[in-house]
Amino acid sequence: MEGFDSGDTAWMLASTALVLFMTPGLAFFYGGMVRSKSVLNMMMMSLSSMGLVGVLWVLYGYSIAFGNDVGGGLLGNPFEAWGLKGLFVGSYSADVAESSYVLSGSIPALAFVGFQATFAIITVALISGAVADRMKFGAWMLFAGLWATIVYFPVAHWVFAFDNEDAGVTGGWIANQLAAIDFAGGTAVHINAGIAALALAIVVGKRKGWPREPMRPHNLTLVMLGAGILWFGWFGFNAGSALGANGTAAFTMVNTIVATCAAMLGWLVTERIRDGKATSLGAASGIVAGLVAITPSCSSVSPMGAILLGAIAGVLCALAVGLKFRFGYDDSLDVVGVHLVGGLVGTILVGFLADPGSPAAVAGLFYGGGVDQLWRQVVGAVAVLLYSGILTFVIALIVKAIFGGKIRLSDEDEATGIDESEHAETSYDFSSHRGLAGVAGTPRPDAATAGAQSVVAGKEG
Amino acid sequence: MEGFDSGDTAWMLASTALVLFMTPGLAFFYGGMVRSKSVLNMMMMSLSSMGLVGVLWVLYGYSIAFGNDVGGGLLGNPFEAWGLKGLFVGSYSADVAESSYVLSGSIPALAFVGFQATFAIITVALISGAVADRMKFGAWMLFAGLWATIVYFPVAHWVFAFDNEDAGVTGGWIANQLAAIDFAGGTAVHINAGIAALALAIVVGKRKGWPREPMRPHNLTLVMLGAGILWFGWFGFNAGSALGANGTAAFTMVNTIVATCAAMLGWLVTERIRDGKATSLGAASGIVAGLVAITPSCSSVSPMGAILLGAIAGVLCALAVGLKFRFGYDDSLDVVGVHLVGGLVGTILVGFLADPGSPAAVAGLFYGGGVDQLWRQVVGAVAVLLYSGILTFVIALIVKAIFGGKIRLSDEDEATGIDESEHAETSYDFSSHRGLAGVAGTPRPDAATAGAQSVVAGKEG
Amino acid sequence: MEGFDSGDTAWMLASTALVLFMTPGLAFFYGGMVRSKSVLNMMMMSLSSMGLVGVLWVLYGYSIAFGNDVGGGLLGNPFEAWGLKGLFVGSYSADVAESSYVLSGSIPALAFVGFQATFAIITVALISGAVADRMKFGAWMLFAGLWATIVYFPVAHWVFAFDNEDAGVTGGWIANQLAAIDFAGGTAVHINAGIAALALAIVVGKRKGWPREPMRPHNLTLVMLGAGILWFGWFGFNAGSALGANGTAAFTMVNTIVATCAAMLGWLVTERIRDGKATSLGAASGIVAGLVAITPSCSSVSPMGAILLGAIAGVLCALAVGLKFRFGYDDSLDVVGVHLVGGLVGTILVGFLADPGSPAAVAGLFYGGGVDQLWRQVVGAVAVLLYSGILTFVIALIVKAIFGGKIRLSDEDEATGIDESEHAETSYDFSSHRGLAGVAGTPRPDAATAGAQSVVAGKEG
Repeated sequence: MEGFDSGDTAWMLASTALVLFMTPGLAFFYGGMVRSKSVLNMMMMSLSSMGLVGVLWVLYGYSIAFGNDVGGGLLGNPFEAWGLKGLFVGSYSADVAESSYVLSGSIPALAFVGFQATFAIITVALISGAVADRMKFGAWMLFAGLWATIVYFPVAHWVFAFDNEDAGVTGGWIANQLAAIDFAGGTAVHINAGIAALALAIVVGKRKGWPREPMRPHNLTLVMLGAGILWFGWFGFNAGSALGANGTAAFTMVNTIVATCAAMLGWLVTERIRDGKATSLGAASGIVAGLVAITPSCSSVSPMGAILLGAIAGVLCALAVGLKFRFGYDDSLDVVGVHLVGGLVGTILVGFLADPGSPAAVAGLFYGGGVDQLWRQVVGAVAVLLYSGILTFVIALIVKAIFGGKIRLSDEDEATGIDESEHAETSYDFSSHRGLAGVAGTPRPDAATAGAQSVVAGKEG
Repeated sequence: MEGFDSGDTAWMLASTALVLFMTPGLAFFYGGMVRSKSVLNMMMMSLSSMGLVGVLWVLYGYSIAFGNDVGGGLLGNPFEAWGLKGLFVGSYSADVAESSYVLSGSIPALAFVGFQATFAIITVALISGAVADRMKFGAWMLFAGLWATIVYFPVAHWVFAFDNEDAGVTGGWIANQLAAIDFAGGTAVHINAGIAALALAIVVGKRKGWPREPMRPHNLTLVMLGAGILWFGWFGFNAGSALGANGTAAFTMVNTIVATCAAMLGWLVTERIRDGKATSLGAASGIVAGLVAITPSCSSVSPMGAILLGAIAGVLCALAVGLKFRFGYDDSLDVVGVHLVGGLVGTILVGFLADPGSPAAVAGLFYGGGVDQLWRQVVGAVAVLLYSGILTFVIALIVKAIFGGKIRLSDEDEATGIDESEHAETSYDFSSHRGLAGVAGTPRPDAATAGAQSVVAGKEG
Repeated sequence: MEGFDSGDTAWMLASTALVLFMTPGLAFFYGGMVRSKSVLNMMMMSLSSMGLVGVLWVLYGYSIAFGNDVGGGLLGNPFEAWGLKGLFVGSYSADVAESSYVLSGSIPALAFVGFQATFAIITVALISGAVADRMKFGAWMLFAGLWATIVYFPVAHWVFAFDNEDAGVTGGWIANQLAAIDFAGGTAVHINAGIAALALAIVVGKRKGWPREPMRPHNLTLVMLGAGILWFGWFGFNAGSALGANGTAAFTMVNTIVATCAAMLGWLVTERIRDGKATSLGAASGIVAGLVAITPSCSSVSPMGAILLGAIAGVLCALAVGLKFRFGYDDSLDVVGVHLVGGLVGTILVGFLADPGSPAAVAGLFYGGGVDQLWRQVVGAVAVLLYSGILTFVIALIVKAIFGGKIRLSDEDEATGIDESEHAETSYDFSSHRGLAGVAGTPRPDAATAGAQSVVAGKEG
């Protein structure tokens, strides 16, 4: 560690802004996919996760994830940096040569704290896609707080906390003892949120009418907007995980472009062959699938490997979103099909495709490395999957119990729409618009009837 | 000053892009809150402010704000850098060691000029939320140009222009003589725009029907989009105000995350207790309230202090948006309740919560600093409030006089909608859509009547 | 070349993210302008360009554009960096002093590769605006791949590939032999895409009903969102083309702000004088026109020159979008009027307005430089215009032939809407919404008729 670097810091500040922007992006991606009577609640689950998890992160989350290990690589010391104490006292002179605030590598410690806060936030928000339209808002908030504390903060320690001998800090077991490669969170973020989504969806139960009634996206331009923001922000997620503006960041950036491109094409081709048409929902979903799959692998596969990995992820996720109909769980917005499956594809393919010329400098099975890296990838993925799956199931049952068994809306409220019943709002009102007169506010059937009556009445006179 | 730093420059370039993006974000935040017949005008008030103020900034605005003081810390020399002359001539070799273009600290002078341009732009645009649906577009444009020139440029000088002995430059009185802490513009931007909004709303008068008729937001997804973009861009606003990629920037970034989180929670909890439901409009408003309050204070309160400050701002602003009903001014989109109140909360709480371990290195009342900083904060806030309030009132009256007393639409045009009457456009048209056939374009009542008539006619034959 | 610089790298990483975000931005800008039955296809043309061109860029596009010249400055060696081989093997140590990955100037070679990928992507996507509502999706995909390969990659070589004696690399003829100034792509991107749009629109033919039937934008908030994202991303496009965080980047950033402001005002004033009203579509279009015009010229005109240049572009493009009605080509979303005309204005005005005090250090006609730079600008512009115009026409005819003469939808499918016929989707569905009951899903005319019938029936009884 050669001390402070303003270029590295500049990139981490930009990356933090980018990753924070992903959660509103996710709110639009998810919000566009639900019916118009549920879009506000869908967005609120993401937004409120930001509020809650952001505060918990400062209070104790950072400390659990990145505090000195309390034993076995399982947990950081929750009291070490409570309220971020000890991380910000220093001399903040603008003169770089005299800067003496607390550093983490070549960047200010708080730049790392802020960057990782955005990861905690979005991981929690990702889960909400599985319980669209039906989960009580208060129950979601309680779940979000418990899940962040019990599942995310420790798992982030396992995967993201590296040992630092110089600083006398011991980190998590997946990063250090196991040495699985998960550059930006295929396990800690996507497998973690994906399996949690499955567990929560099972406890909450299916939407009324699912899968008989069609519940198609109410606004595909909003879905596209979400996908666009997610891709944009994901550059911070992946290339920011290099923790500096360096060759590794540039490498992961190119892979984050090209794997995503290939995954989009993979999804669209799968649709074309299977259904005859390539859809915009498929393009948006393919983008996210590619981004998920390249997240753990962007530092270890070559750009050509990234094309292959992205294409595989696009095809497999396009197929996997059908699993819920076969197995009968209502993962409403395909968190399992995209994040769990995409996360597994990306994490495990590292074991095959890792190129020793890449920054990770590891050889996978196809590059003569044997199965050494492959089993590490599998163990890491399975460990997070089991821990998160089981704990999430338990947390969801506890939340359900606390809410007296009523973790979801009444049937009547669900039929009316969760926006009205939980938030006393409706999403759109075009009624003031002359060209759209009467579209909302004055429900149309009555107006039409009134119009007909007056005509008829006119005839009577 | 140790000369040029590419990392600092990288962060200022990124910050400039981020803050410029805030004004379109504001256009969506405001645009979603009005009725569908006014959304285009609402967005046009923000957009046209960009066009006008951006040009004025280059012509003379920068020079008034950051030119050498002409006396008393009240005004920069408007002719010093007219058209940015003197700021860009240099050798632009890519070789850093030989760079000799004009610097401002460790960054190119033009990077500072561009960054500050975006502040001038958004401050003017903020005001427009108070006069939704009713102000003549030409009158708004005239007001915007006068207000930027007479109010914003001088106040920016007071608050943002620091003395620089090395460069022989004297700055503004609030930054230097008073030494109030306003890191990124609680006074110069938010109190300034908030009180101006009140003055302008009073001169323009209430919307027809207000407050009897409900005028609810026509598109809450657009409001959320605006809030998301504002948060994202605000990292440039606050952390960019460190003028480099350093520990202060990282510190302010973490505070900008966590205060905003706490404010959102504060607003939602207030709604829950008062109204029974937490709304998405409340979440979006809470985000903005938190961002406003942490703007002046992000360099001087600890992350724990930021949580407290954010929560207070969220609660107080949630209560303050009701004041307009009590006092009878139609601040349509709550510029007063959010920006004036949030700006006051943030500016004054510095006097209580300033932590000497933070970059500002000042102790507030709660940290043993007595009332020394507190009175400076109050004086700065009140000075800007009075100057802006009085001058804005006068400017608005002058604009009204120039328009022959008609600063707003006729009653008929207001009823029709300002988009049609001022811009000859309507915002949405879903009529081509098969599933939405006839929704717009062919106004529904006529179509329904026609349908009824044909049925009746059929019966007659 | 003084070796690696983390600040330069930070800015290039941020710029890459910004420019990539422009293509979704373009999708919204274009998508909002079409009718609601075509918005998904419009967005899909942009999105699928990202997928396809991103992959081609890694496979051979980068190599054609930036590989060592094969002769005459016309083409890079397509096999030199096939699959980016040779560009990423190195030591990726976090320690800057020991970094030994492949560099391009002061940034990692892959940072340059990623940055330029985003240029290739958006240039292809720009063309799609000319063929809204009617081109077969498969035909578009084939066209996009051929056009990128045959037109864009070579033209990017001409304009963007500079000779590098140290590295023994020879570049393109416009950049080096001709020495025309095209800082960020007035020729390679905008004239190129603009004339290609004209050629493709002629081959594909007019929309049914054009120009008789009004085909007004279905969602102007979406257009505004697109314009906002484009402006934001364009800072990466222009200031990123400085390839570092330096004085040139800051200079081009200020010009990218102020020329755009002036162009918006120019367009609005033109509308006001011509039509009596300034529209939001005009503001959005003016923004894009200004951004296009300042793209080639941002390094060579002063900020005052940028105001003039922007204003001229705003006025001329506002007039030029009427040309299609006079000449009868259906350039649906004005790619010709904005990108071709704006690109020509910006490229050629450099010959008049180039200020020797700017980074380009060239004197135009008005600064005593005579016609030397002017003829270079004209030759560069005309060369790209002719090459792209002719080749695009040929490619479009080939694609038409491959599709058996049917490059566009049947009349029936076009009337139904391309979203349904090509993607089996519809963009919006507000039917679940109580206040909007029956708006979609249950088409309104039938419902109205049913209501009338029941009234009539009631009368019969």
